[in-house]
Amino acid sequence: MTTEQLEAQIHLKKSFLCIGLDVDISKIPKHLLELEDPIFAFNKAIIDATHHLCVAYKPNTAFYEAYGIKGWQALEKTIKYLNKQYPEIFTVADAKRGDIGNTSTMYAKAFFEDLAFDSVTVAPYMGKDSVEPFLAFNNKHTIMLALTSNKGAFDFQTKKVDNKELYKEVLETSKSWKNSKNLMYVVGATKAEYFKEIREIIPNSFLLVPGIGAQGGNLQDVCKYGLSKNVGLLINSSRGIIYASNKNDFAKVATIKAEELQQQMEVILKKHHAAIE
Amino acid sequence: MTTEQLEAQIHLKKSFLCIGLDVDISKIPKHLLELEDPIFAFNKAIIDATHHLCVAYKPNTAFYEAYGIKGWQALEKTIKYLNKQYPEIFTVADAKRGDIGNTSTMYAKAFFEDLAFDSVTVAPYMGKDSVEPFLAFNNKHTIMLALTSNKGAFDFQTKKVDNKELYKEVLETSKSWKNSKNLMYVVGATKAEYFKEIREIIPNSFLLVPGIGAQGGNLQDVCKYGLSKNVGLLINSSRGIIYASNKNDFAKVATIKAEELQQQMEVILKKHHAAIE
Repeated sequence: MTTEQLEAQIHLKKSFLCIGLDVDISKIPKHLLELEDPIFAFNKAIIDATHHLCVAYKPNTAFYEAYGIKGWQALEKTIKYLNKQYPEIFTVADAKRGDIGNTSTMYAKAFFEDLAFDSVTVAPYMGKDSVEPFLAFNNKHTIMLALTSNKGAFDFQTKKVDNKELYKEVLETSKSWKNSKNLMYVVGATKAEYFKEIREIIPNSFLLVPGIGAQGGNLQDVCKYGLSKNVGLLINSSRGIIYASNKNDFAKVATIKAEELQQQMEVILKKHHAAIE
Repeated sequence: MTTEQLEAQIHLKKSFLCIGLDVDISKIPKHLLELEDPIFAFNKAIIDATHHLCVAYKPNTAFYEAYGIKGWQALEKTIKYLNKQYPEIFTVADAKRGDIGNTSTMYAKAFFEDLAFDSVTVAPYMGKDSVEPFLAFNNKHTIMLALTSNKGAFDFQTKKVDNKELYKEVLETSKSWKNSKNLMYVVGATKAEYFKEIREIIPNSFLLVPGIGAQGGNLQDVCKYGLSKNVGLLINSSRGIIYASNKNDFAKVATIKAEELQQQMEVILKKHHAAIE
């Protein structure tokens, strides 16, 4: 999917919501456990109930790897279902991968070709030659960790390197990498005030923003500082939508929770368009 | 496996060699491609031919993920075979994972419980709460990236943070994390002169050292600066052993190449023990 196609979906659906498919068997409704593939059944129900309210889905690979081969089969079925039924949806493999050159190419093939995701998250620690192999794929997007939403973000990411925080150095440096137009960045919602300075470095890049809801981030604050001219935000919510109910009505309740966020986003987009016109 | 058990194996085998099982279908002998599971068949042949010369095997997960479900099945078969046939071998899942707390726990379960690896590699960028979930597993080892062997290491890892390089800050900081005794570190062989300063920060920790051979690192130099009192090194070689021949004799040639390294290590260990006695 191209960036322009993603932007068109945002305008069409009046939403920049990404739903995290982080499926923990112990948290899903009990009646699903009798099915052959409870993880896929759960995902399918959530997707069918929310696809009109969001523009992206983001399975975190950890939740699938934890169930071994069965987990990978569920991930494969989920992405195939998404690509077939809802090809207009942007898909994110939240894998946080990164390795030396030829090995990163193997990861890129796994997620971009074998599984046919639109994007994958990567870690920046190993530098340019660990990320450029991902950037080489046309119309695929590499979402690099910049400032994450956890406490540990303050251990290294905000440490000063040459008088600027490491995450800013990461943002700045990555702009010079080959095919950097294929880069997006992870920026946690729990630090809304940081978005202003981030936008000075990367005014137009898409930011994938976890941390709304369960982790304490605020949608209004993030949008105030984080929106770009072309929106440029994908706000992720996982637990707040997919585990809002663990009863038979879980899909219906997920619709309600996703709709609440979509409607807030619709208002924000309306104001934003009025402001920049 | 405990650190003491790993050390005992090093003394018994007079080797601190780790063999990287990075199986690229395009590089293995053609006759294996007719078999049902060429990746596992290749690994089994390499393992049977070299297990007496090394103390560890390290499959890099990228090479398995690239082949989808079949790749994961081959990885699962490989680790099961190792744990059953050669339980004295230390196993490393080279996965370079890392995520926020509860998600890291899922990864830790995947590699330590489901697949039963002795250790897994992790990336430090997300800080303490992304690594501590791995450290919570008893007699399992978390091998954190410190200074990697690729060019990109100079993009961020060697940048100065509070007057010391980021990788040193990573080493220093990690010592205060809960269960830090379960930490080992990745340090690339291509930068042998760095080992001296690294040993000042972590005198006794095990270091997993990639980059010998194909990537240009030198075994003697690494050992000169990197050996700890209890050895404390696992030197990895992948391509130089497993792809030394791509003909029918590949396993035999792998034995020869592994033996060359083991014999160099035997000499180094002899001198080392003489020096510290």
